[in-house]
Amino acid sequence: MTRRMRLVAYLKTGPTANHGGGWRHPASRLDDIFRPERYEDVARLLEDARFDAAFFADAFGLPDIHRGGYDTYLRLGGQISYLDPMTVLPFMMRATRHLGLGATLSTTFFHPYHLARTLASMDILSEGRMAWNVVTSATDFEARNFGGDAIPPRAERYDRGDEVLEACRALWEGWDADAFVMDREAGVFIDPAKVRYADYKGRYVSTRGPLSIPRSPQTGPVLMQAGSSDRGREFATRWAELIFITPAYKEDAAAYAADIRARLATAGRDPTLCPVLPACATVVAETREIAREKADYLNALIDPDLALAANSNTIGVDLTQPLPPDGPVRQGIQGSWDRVAVRAEREGITFVEAAKRPRNLMVGTPNDVADQMEDWFKSGACDGFVLWPTHSPGMFEDFARMVVPVLQKRGLMQTEYREGTLREKLRG
Amino acid sequence: MTRRMRLVAYLKTGPTANHGGGWRHPASRLDDIFRPERYEDVARLLEDARFDAAFFADAFGLPDIHRGGYDTYLRLGGQISYLDPMTVLPFMMRATRHLGLGATLSTTFFHPYHLARTLASMDILSEGRMAWNVVTSATDFEARNFGGDAIPPRAERYDRGDEVLEACRALWEGWDADAFVMDREAGVFIDPAKVRYADYKGRYVSTRGPLSIPRSPQTGPVLMQAGSSDRGREFATRWAELIFITPAYKEDAAAYAADIRARLATAGRDPTLCPVLPACATVVAETREIAREKADYLNALIDPDLALAANSNTIGVDLTQPLPPDGPVRQGIQGSWDRVAVRAEREGITFVEAAKRPRNLMVGTPNDVADQMEDWFKSGACDGFVLWPTHSPGMFEDFARMVVPVLQKRGLMQTEYREGTLREKLRG
Repeated sequence: MTRRMRLVAYLKTGPTANHGGGWRHPASRLDDIFRPERYEDVARLLEDARFDAAFFADAFGLPDIHRGGYDTYLRLGGQISYLDPMTVLPFMMRATRHLGLGATLSTTFFHPYHLARTLASMDILSEGRMAWNVVTSATDFEARNFGGDAIPPRAERYDRGDEVLEACRALWEGWDADAFVMDREAGVFIDPAKVRYADYKGRYVSTRGPLSIPRSPQTGPVLMQAGSSDRGREFATRWAELIFITPAYKEDAAAYAADIRARLATAGRDPTLCPVLPACATVVAETREIAREKADYLNALIDPDLALAANSNTIGVDLTQPLPPDGPVRQGIQGSWDRVAVRAEREGITFVEAAKRPRNLMVGTPNDVADQMEDWFKSGACDGFVLWPTHSPGMFEDFARMVVPVLQKRGLMQTEYREGTLREKLRG
Repeated sequence: MTRRMRLVAYLKTGPTANHGGGWRHPASRLDDIFRPERYEDVARLLEDARFDAAFFADAFGLPDIHRGGYDTYLRLGGQISYLDPMTVLPFMMRATRHLGLGATLSTTFFHPYHLARTLASMDILSEGRMAWNVVTSATDFEARNFGGDAIPPRAERYDRGDEVLEACRALWEGWDADAFVMDREAGVFIDPAKVRYADYKGRYVSTRGPLSIPRSPQTGPVLMQAGSSDRGREFATRWAELIFITPAYKEDAAAYAADIRARLATAGRDPTLCPVLPACATVVAETREIAREKADYLNALIDPDLALAANSNTIGVDLTQPLPPDGPVRQGIQGSWDRVAVRAEREGITFVEAAKRPRNLMVGTPNDVADQMEDWFKSGACDGFVLWPTHSPGMFEDFARMVVPVLQKRGLMQTEYREGTLREKLRG
């Protein structure tokens, strides 16, 4: 196997992900969304299927941009981050041995001391399996939960993000790996010469340190990033070890991947060490006809107003209000704006019409779906995928049973985990 | 059983608690301090012994007041909060069914949105077993980890603390218990009319809400508090449902308990619903002679410079520097200052001499230790105890095996848990 596909599962602490109707599917579990077992079960399922990692998307609060409130989104079951993902990741850690575990944490709304301490703690407890999906947050409703009026401008958020990561790195590197002595007879617990202050002073954040935590197996977690704007790509080029994108079409993924690989090379980083993973959802069945019917069934579960609301919330504009014909001014999450705009252009429909349509799915027999994934992968449009569930755990179960064996047989996907930390596994 | 003793275990994410030499004891486990199993095991042990709850003490960083650095404290094994306790509490949650689970979280260094969300998430996942030991933090070294120069003055910290709790309460009460509809056929996920903004605007903190979390079984966690200053007691009178104190002698506990009960009554609160629990450590053995030898052995493990360092750090003054004869100006954690000052006065020694001495222990046969606990309890000096371990899990194992059965036989301690949330259990 010369180059293998990386697979990462996109999870939410709730039944709703990007597919607005998925919670209504009979193979979507609703009774256990607030119980540890749900998260343990999905972690075991993903590890049995040899996924590289699972990560939780997250945001703070209830989006209330669409129609000026959160009513549509709550009533119809929009994608919301219910439980704090950090409180369920430990359950998944105990249920697995190899699966990478990722948390989405905002550099805008957390102080680096908290981030560094919590992530290092989890990296230690998981024996080096943590990943951090670094986000800068993008919505006013989140800012208001933290006492602000509006989200800071993108440039400022990314400048602060750079500082937060610099500060975290200084904190993580403050302990030598062999600082713990624990000599009962001599009465020496730690060698203080192996612990140093971080003394980080930035414009936005400062921290002195040291952490109270020894060096974790990975020193810091694997950094994931999803920046789509120019400034976001600059940030990813500096920090990312795994990139998550949400393109509408393969060509958009390919264009992104080419751009980021060129940026990485210019920055002196090895592009093969920073896989680009587009989001993808699959509908797989015994025959093409059944798969098509399943996809139609799923899409019929989505209320178009919810699809619109989801885009209102990520784009940061109430799409039910009058708009210029080519769509709203670019703002909010740039990847979301781009995906809708590209789709409107390619399909010859308005921005709002495009925003109402369900996301593209990979539909077909196990071989059909594997063919599509192989095509994206081998053409260089990506290095693997982030699988987001139309419904959970149903879609992951179908994918694990039917598509994974095909990908493995084709030599595209790992059949066993390598030993070592998540960073080491991802490089292998 | 008309009035029963409440027992709460004091834990740290590490081998070192208040007893500076305990980590050197052969029954102190050192090999698993960074592994989930350690926390699961102690949780099971405490639940088998029918403790009401366990809570983690915590602070941010390495105390570096003593001799102007952290060297003594690290080298000799001072009490440090290693791993973030929030990352190990989920392991304990899964290993138990009834044990209350407490986290120490600072109102000075966290925003109420984070606190409310994380604590509500854990209250849901634990089915109503969470407690929050509310602290305002008291040291400059913590402030410096968060970009400040010095800890804000006590009055300001408590004023902010009041706001943080008001904001958390507004967030926790933002969802009605029956907001989730989850009707697949009708396509109705949540009834948005049952979710409200918090709209909290304070002088120090503001948050709009709503949380993305449904109402938790206890609405909010049980609130623990350890305020010893006048302002701290005022805060406890308003909020606390469980009070933790660290007196040197029974009379000091009695004086505190009488004062807080009078304050509660004046405030219109039922003092019996706010148990006062002094810290206590036990050394129990087959005979008084063995117990005495065990206590001597334990105390001989403490380097006097470490005992002094521990007090330097909590009092906020380097006690190795020249001081006025009656000790330093009152500052830092007031309960720590008081304990040392009272001890110096009663034992006729200097403040610094008192600060070097090991803490008092309850020593003797199972009946002796039960007698002492019963005396404190029945005389009204307290409503139970916070057991802090001289060494862990050794002291908890000895206490569970030898003292708990005696307390249960005397009808002082519960033999089974009541059903219900932690708040309901504590009231029973």
